[in-house]
Amino acid sequence: MNLQQYLSEHQQEHLEMACRLMAQKSVSPTGEGMAECAALLRGMMEDAGLRTEVLKTPGHPILFGEMNVGAPFTVLIYGHYDVQPPEPLEAWVSPPFEPTIRNGRIYCRGAGDNKGQLMANLLAVRAFHKTGERLPVNVKFCLEGEEESSSANLAWAVEQYKEKLACDMVYTADGPQHASGRPTVLLGVRGIQYVQVDCEGADRDHHSGNKGGATPNPAWYLMQALARFWGDSPHEVAVPGFYDSVRPVTPLEQALLDRLPWDPVETARGLGLADDHFASTTAAEFYRRTLMRPTLNICGFTSGYGGPGSKTIIPARASAKLDMRLVADQDPLDIYEKFVAHLQAVTADMTEVRFTVTDLGSMAPSRTSPDRPEAQAVVRAVRRAYGEEPVVMPSLGGSLPDYVWTRILGVPSVVVPYANPDEDNHAPNENIALDCFFNGIRCATEVFVELGSIRSPKL
Amino acid sequence: MNLQQYLSEHQQEHLEMACRLMAQKSVSPTGEGMAECAALLRGMMEDAGLRTEVLKTPGHPILFGEMNVGAPFTVLIYGHYDVQPPEPLEAWVSPPFEPTIRNGRIYCRGAGDNKGQLMANLLAVRAFHKTGERLPVNVKFCLEGEEESSSANLAWAVEQYKEKLACDMVYTADGPQHASGRPTVLLGVRGIQYVQVDCEGADRDHHSGNKGGATPNPAWYLMQALARFWGDSPHEVAVPGFYDSVRPVTPLEQALLDRLPWDPVETARGLGLADDHFASTTAAEFYRRTLMRPTLNICGFTSGYGGPGSKTIIPARASAKLDMRLVADQDPLDIYEKFVAHLQAVTADMTEVRFTVTDLGSMAPSRTSPDRPEAQAVVRAVRRAYGEEPVVMPSLGGSLPDYVWTRILGVPSVVVPYANPDEDNHAPNENIALDCFFNGIRCATEVFVELGSIRSPKL
Repeated sequence: MNLQQYLSEHQQEHLEMACRLMAQKSVSPTGEGMAECAALLRGMMEDAGLRTEVLKTPGHPILFGEMNVGAPFTVLIYGHYDVQPPEPLEAWVSPPFEPTIRNGRIYCRGAGDNKGQLMANLLAVRAFHKTGERLPVNVKFCLEGEEESSSANLAWAVEQYKEKLACDMVYTADGPQHASGRPTVLLGVRGIQYVQVDCEGADRDHHSGNKGGATPNPAWYLMQALARFWGDSPHEVAVPGFYDSVRPVTPLEQALLDRLPWDPVETARGLGLADDHFASTTAAEFYRRTLMRPTLNICGFTSGYGGPGSKTIIPARASAKLDMRLVADQDPLDIYEKFVAHLQAVTADMTEVRFTVTDLGSMAPSRTSPDRPEAQAVVRAVRRAYGEEPVVMPSLGGSLPDYVWTRILGVPSVVVPYANPDEDNHAPNENIALDCFFNGIRCATEVFVELGSIRSPKL
Repeated sequence: MNLQQYLSEHQQEHLEMACRLMAQKSVSPTGEGMAECAALLRGMMEDAGLRTEVLKTPGHPILFGEMNVGAPFTVLIYGHYDVQPPEPLEAWVSPPFEPTIRNGRIYCRGAGDNKGQLMANLLAVRAFHKTGERLPVNVKFCLEGEEESSSANLAWAVEQYKEKLACDMVYTADGPQHASGRPTVLLGVRGIQYVQVDCEGADRDHHSGNKGGATPNPAWYLMQALARFWGDSPHEVAVPGFYDSVRPVTPLEQALLDRLPWDPVETARGLGLADDHFASTTAAEFYRRTLMRPTLNICGFTSGYGGPGSKTIIPARASAKLDMRLVADQDPLDIYEKFVAHLQAVTADMTEVRFTVTDLGSMAPSRTSPDRPEAQAVVRAVRRAYGEEPVVMPSLGGSLPDYVWTRILGVPSVVVPYANPDEDNHAPNENIALDCFFNGIRCATEVFVELGSIRSPKL
């Protein structure tokens, strides 16, 4: 039987399978239903023709599955079977763990994030298996149970099971499509390095009159120190060496950036800024700053009194929280060391106060070049599956642990979100549109076909 | 009968009168007992030989008293009959409004601040009256009922009753003596101008990854703007014209500053700083900064997240609270206008965000030169009354509404604190040492004598 015909005829069965998985609670932050969900999903993976294994981690286990068809190309499919807590319960129209179809959508916690999407990929493999059609690539699945708990053990596990997870690329279906509703391909994420800088003066707040002029003010010193971390613009970081490892934007990446949808007024409104805020900003500049360049950003600055009215004190301490969004090929540790060295340099003569820095966590950046054949194969597959030119984003502005694939496994990584832009992941009434779900299955089959062609003579 | 002999023989009576006044609640913030206390005190003023009047204000009234002996010099004695709330009640050893003598002190709310001290001045006048000895100066009393409510109507009342209050100088007994326990003369206070600067960007916090590089960060702009309010040191204010009206320190003032007690290690410890913090600071520099020079101080800087761990946001707003301690002859309004003008200048190109300034209140500075004969007369009187060289402070670092005398009435103003350094004003177990109380009465008589000599041929 033809594969696409099979998919058409088995929509009801596929829908029921997805709903069965969604109905099984699997809240990783509380642990509720995790073991039951892993068992259910493992059975479905076996039914899809995969040889499965449970990979232990210090937290919830990873479900591993493999179908080796002897193809020259192996794709590792990443996904996660855990979901966010459903609270606030009263905000749900139908109960959060009773998959309910209305308005052409499945409403359920985990519908879009990520059960509906990982099922689409699994059902694509299953379709090859059930129809007997030859899968054009070897497939592996790596489905973790801690994505909603910051993927706390993912990097550890990928190191630990490196050989088992060995592959030619990683493919993920997660997140919503571009706001325009157009099919979307994501090729990277920014990393992050989060730091806290503390500055201490006296051991307690002092009266600003009686002690004013004698007691050092940590807010002043911290402000003066931080002010030297930028040039004239907030987009020019002055930490020596900060930009050294920034990978240049390729002409193809630039072409993709230039093609990204851009409405300056709509963007300003979306951010809650004046309509003309981006009047003199080009699309290229906007996307360069938000996707392709690193940032140094003040997340918080706290010192002394912030309540109503006045309080006349010299604060005893001041504290700033900053995050740096990193881009390929910046390394968080290297950047952290450069940050600390710069702080030491600019505060060398500030002996009246004490500075300390705390590393509050990091995640490496990741970017797969659109010039790579794997990326181009996915773009072709998406274009054919949806019959529409996809939005191809060279990077997201945010941070996800994509580096575990590109840095630890050392392979390209491509993300194709299947869910509707209003999937409301992490929110009440999470959902996935039925056509997004079915399109996702077809997209996955096209991706397998295109990836199978990479190392063939056609290339 | 000789005046000093009279004072010795009537100590018990004087003590009982002071305790009677202290026992009468007069909590201006709540209003409790205010009218009763005013009536009681007015009776005592009449008994001391004063012609009295109740001066209405928008709040609690001022008790005015006058004894015109036809002398060429008139001194106005300022004091206040209201007290702080007594809470926390459980922390008092004896009930807060039951004057109790133990360890040579009277314990009662208001004992030191200010009933014991104003009674000392009143009892000195009464002693002249009762003994029939001629008072060497005309005396006026201005006893307000809102000092513990920020003297909310004092400036208004002094304007309103300017002619009635007309005098050659103002004399006040309030506050504790110098920490060394030495008699103390205060010749001025710093003023204050408090401002809040707000900076707004987007209408809400944004994700620092997805929006990082596009959304303006008010914390960054506020930090950059404020950094330009100082030169290289926190003691160099860069607001144009800020120092224009600063009155130069006279040689005599400098001599007094040089004579102020100074122990750099003790001072550092008292402030909770490292022992060697002031190792390279001279006494002259320390007192110049804390008493004679204006400051610009950050009382608070608040933006974004200040809790534990990390939160990855671009804050929507940032806010700073600053106070400027002003010295003679700076004018708060002039300084405020210069501050605003400088903010406008340094933020002129920061069009990505919106700045606003709020005036959170001000008080003019005040300083009476130690070169003035009135100041020198008081110093002589204190020296003789206590048999010890007083600590003469050309100014306090803090702010009190002394300007109502020097600016509105246009006369010199001298403060001589009678209370022990550990009077615990505003705290539980407030007290005044008995010898401080009796010395205060004697001190006042000596002050009258010395002031009476000013315009005589002796000068």
